[in-house]
Amino acid sequence: MSTAAAPTTATPVADTPIAELDAFLGLAVDASTAWRAATIAVRGEALRAVAEGLDARADDLVLLARRETHLTEARLRGELTRTTFQLRLFADVLAEGSWLDARIDHAVADYPMGAPRPDIRRQLEGIGTVLVFAASNFPFAFSVAGGDTASALAAGNAVVLKAHPGHPHLSDLTGEIVAASLAAAGAPAGIFTVVHGIDAGVHALRHPDVRAAAFTGSIAGGRALFDIAMSRPEPIPFYGELGSVNPAFVTPGAARARATEIAEQFVASVTGSAGQLCTKPGLLLVPAGSAVVDALTATVLPAPAPLLNSSIAAGFRRSVDATAAHDGVGPLVGARGADGAPTVHVDAEGADAGDPAPVLLRTTAAAVVADPDALVSEMFGPAALVAEYDDESELVAVAKLLDGQLTATIVGDEGDAVAAELLPVLATKAGRVLWNQWPTGVSVTWAQQHGGPYPATTAVGATSVGTAAITRFLRPVAYQNVPDVLLPAALQDANPLGIPRRIDGVLQP
Amino acid sequence: MSTAAAPTTATPVADTPIAELDAFLGLAVDASTAWRAATIAVRGEALRAVAEGLDARADDLVLLARRETHLTEARLRGELTRTTFQLRLFADVLAEGSWLDARIDHAVADYPMGAPRPDIRRQLEGIGTVLVFAASNFPFAFSVAGGDTASALAAGNAVVLKAHPGHPHLSDLTGEIVAASLAAAGAPAGIFTVVHGIDAGVHALRHPDVRAAAFTGSIAGGRALFDIAMSRPEPIPFYGELGSVNPAFVTPGAARARATEIAEQFVASVTGSAGQLCTKPGLLLVPAGSAVVDALTATVLPAPAPLLNSSIAAGFRRSVDATAAHDGVGPLVGARGADGAPTVHVDAEGADAGDPAPVLLRTTAAAVVADPDALVSEMFGPAALVAEYDDESELVAVAKLLDGQLTATIVGDEGDAVAAELLPVLATKAGRVLWNQWPTGVSVTWAQQHGGPYPATTAVGATSVGTAAITRFLRPVAYQNVPDVLLPAALQDANPLGIPRRIDGVLQP
Repeated sequence: MSTAAAPTTATPVADTPIAELDAFLGLAVDASTAWRAATIAVRGEALRAVAEGLDARADDLVLLARRETHLTEARLRGELTRTTFQLRLFADVLAEGSWLDARIDHAVADYPMGAPRPDIRRQLEGIGTVLVFAASNFPFAFSVAGGDTASALAAGNAVVLKAHPGHPHLSDLTGEIVAASLAAAGAPAGIFTVVHGIDAGVHALRHPDVRAAAFTGSIAGGRALFDIAMSRPEPIPFYGELGSVNPAFVTPGAARARATEIAEQFVASVTGSAGQLCTKPGLLLVPAGSAVVDALTATVLPAPAPLLNSSIAAGFRRSVDATAAHDGVGPLVGARGADGAPTVHVDAEGADAGDPAPVLLRTTAAAVVADPDALVSEMFGPAALVAEYDDESELVAVAKLLDGQLTATIVGDEGDAVAAELLPVLATKAGRVLWNQWPTGVSVTWAQQHGGPYPATTAVGATSVGTAAITRFLRPVAYQNVPDVLLPAALQDANPLGIPRRIDGVLQP
Repeated sequence: MSTAAAPTTATPVADTPIAELDAFLGLAVDASTAWRAATIAVRGEALRAVAEGLDARADDLVLLARRETHLTEARLRGELTRTTFQLRLFADVLAEGSWLDARIDHAVADYPMGAPRPDIRRQLEGIGTVLVFAASNFPFAFSVAGGDTASALAAGNAVVLKAHPGHPHLSDLTGEIVAASLAAAGAPAGIFTVVHGIDAGVHALRHPDVRAAAFTGSIAGGRALFDIAMSRPEPIPFYGELGSVNPAFVTPGAARARATEIAEQFVASVTGSAGQLCTKPGLLLVPAGSAVVDALTATVLPAPAPLLNSSIAAGFRRSVDATAAHDGVGPLVGARGADGAPTVHVDAEGADAGDPAPVLLRTTAAAVVADPDALVSEMFGPAALVAEYDDESELVAVAKLLDGQLTATIVGDEGDAVAAELLPVLATKAGRVLWNQWPTGVSVTWAQQHGGPYPATTAVGATSVGTAAITRFLRPVAYQNVPDVLLPAALQDANPLGIPRRIDGVLQP
């Protein structure tokens, strides 16, 4: 239990003045230099200190988060646990040392390339100040102290955190805890700050001292920021996680064998956190007239729940209405208008008409194939489209015309020929392919991949969840013929860090 | 000795019709799918077959290259050796298996994140069809069968090679050998083609089936193509290697101890291959009035040599004239006009006035600090700017205002305090930092890094030389809860490929 003053959301949070931001960015250059040079142990301890600082203020943080996001206490406490776990995991990652990708090639006079090989040693180093745009839907795990911040700090960089306007007070409190914990752990001044306002975010994104940016949010917002980053005089890496429909494909055999279970799990995945997850399965392909359709039709969807804010709610209604209005789309289960029409809200158009009800719409796989741009489209909130197929070849046809996805799911059995055919196709479309599990609940692990081809992300080679996320904020540097005493520790002959290295092409763990 | 028909450059090479390109790109989608699924052994053998095919036609290739590029036979034979070495090295890289970055996280019920961990397995897979824009200055090693092609094919992708107009016949002959060798080794139809013409290149760059692009060339050309790639509806990774000045910093101690050696090696590095190397040291910082200046002044520069083509020669003259015309810049050694003025050509402006003579210009470090945009600027050809400094603090001042570089070089001694201060600054500016060696002659090794912050490259995390180059054309895919029998070989329990993997966070070589 914290003894600090009770947090409040009473006072509006002001936009950050540009002069203040510029002053911070000046400090951040030197902070990045110092932090990059700090030992792995120091950086790791600082990450652990941040985790401890957040844990110590958990009650205050969760209270503020509840007020500002309408998410449940259980969900928020779980998310905070995930967040501090992630910080500690990156401390472990630092100590393990593979993230440095240390390579040593000794000089070889008689090198078969036709010229002598010099001594070359290469490692990954911090890229410089990183700008992070926080997400609305994970006020801890993808916000101020979230994965982007953790991995950018771990990599040895200063961080400018552009707060999401959906939870500004929580952002400030989290930011204070992060900054104080880092300072107490010996991190340099200028290592971390939180800024508010679109102008500050865009100004930072254009600033020459910002060397990389990360973003989690909508396709429209993310693309606009991506375009700014790419049109700089010096473009910088922009790691945007934008949108995803996360299609799921149910084979005929699975539909026959496990209809009720599939329907229940699908609905739980669609409606958990009121559907406000980037990995929510928004499209389910099922055999026409199968028991899965029956089970879904018989489902009682959860009661309406508040969405994160009125802007999210309005966007959700627009996206559901657009899908529902499409030829060949009708209601399957969920809220209806007084006239039984497949609309999900009954009040004045555009107004915040109370909490939106969960809804499942129905269509056919043929309709999806005919107009994928319209029907494979994210509805951010508790909604999904169920598409019935007549022939399992339609599964592959739908898979082949997908845009990039964070995830794609197969619900099938090992013997399903169509599943074996689907899997490699889906692997070209999504960053993560699931088998008989559901895509929400993105575990933070060494093998996790949260990112896929555009528009799932703007950087197809990157992940924003899992230990590989650190690579986004690193860049390779080779040292040729540099004396041992002047080399970074990871590249010195004696391997003082005790890390895995590749010596003359041979991996030495 | 080849028995094939003697090559000729008599007939102009026509631009590739767009319809022909489109037809190839259709084939390439399926080829990429098949190639990605091919075994590592098959792909490795195909790369070796290409190397053998090129070796078998070495005489014809070198003959054509001499006619089209004016480079010397010795240089071209060496470059071809480098090129086939590189293809074979990527076959070794494939077999070693670390490039897959295979990670296996087993399911954990009681995971400290607060939710059970599913079974997740991740590897890198081919990104899809890759478009490669060939360079002019390395007609083998950065052209049709060069590093980009080798690494893209190794990664499991089809390749569309946009030929450089400077050596079109060589490009066609090389392309025929590559395609025939790949076909004979069992690679699918549509795996590789050569196209000609700007329209074909831009059309391919905009084509939705092209999933990544690589380029080596000028800042202006590379940025234009980068902008096209980034403005696509679905942006794709664009790996451009653009321009670099490759500054070298001589400490006072080194200048005192080794003036003649430094001058000789510097001049050799500036004038080798007529200075047409992206790592040519274009700026040398030396103590004012030091013996290095004397040694350089006494140098007899090599005789004028033909540049690659008249466009390169004209660009070289423009860039040297622009630098020479700057306040505070004068001639150090090299060709002069009849009036002794520091101009490098004496004939009609803009005309191809014979082969340009090598030239060294001189200025002060203070002048560089005052106008780095003008004086730290690439002169592609046999020229460099020698900047004299009065105080060694100017070395750090110049280093701090550099744009991104491929390389930066320190000529010093271990005890030089300024060298220890310079090194970490240069590591933020360049992809490769050298000590008492010169940056030309980029060795192809596991630890090589050929790429740096913009404008050296458009993708600061990537290299176009060395084994890490393969990563550019791969993307991560995670498989969650997928049955062993359906998993890619690298992720199956039994490790049938025998490759290094990370199991539950622990690296297992």
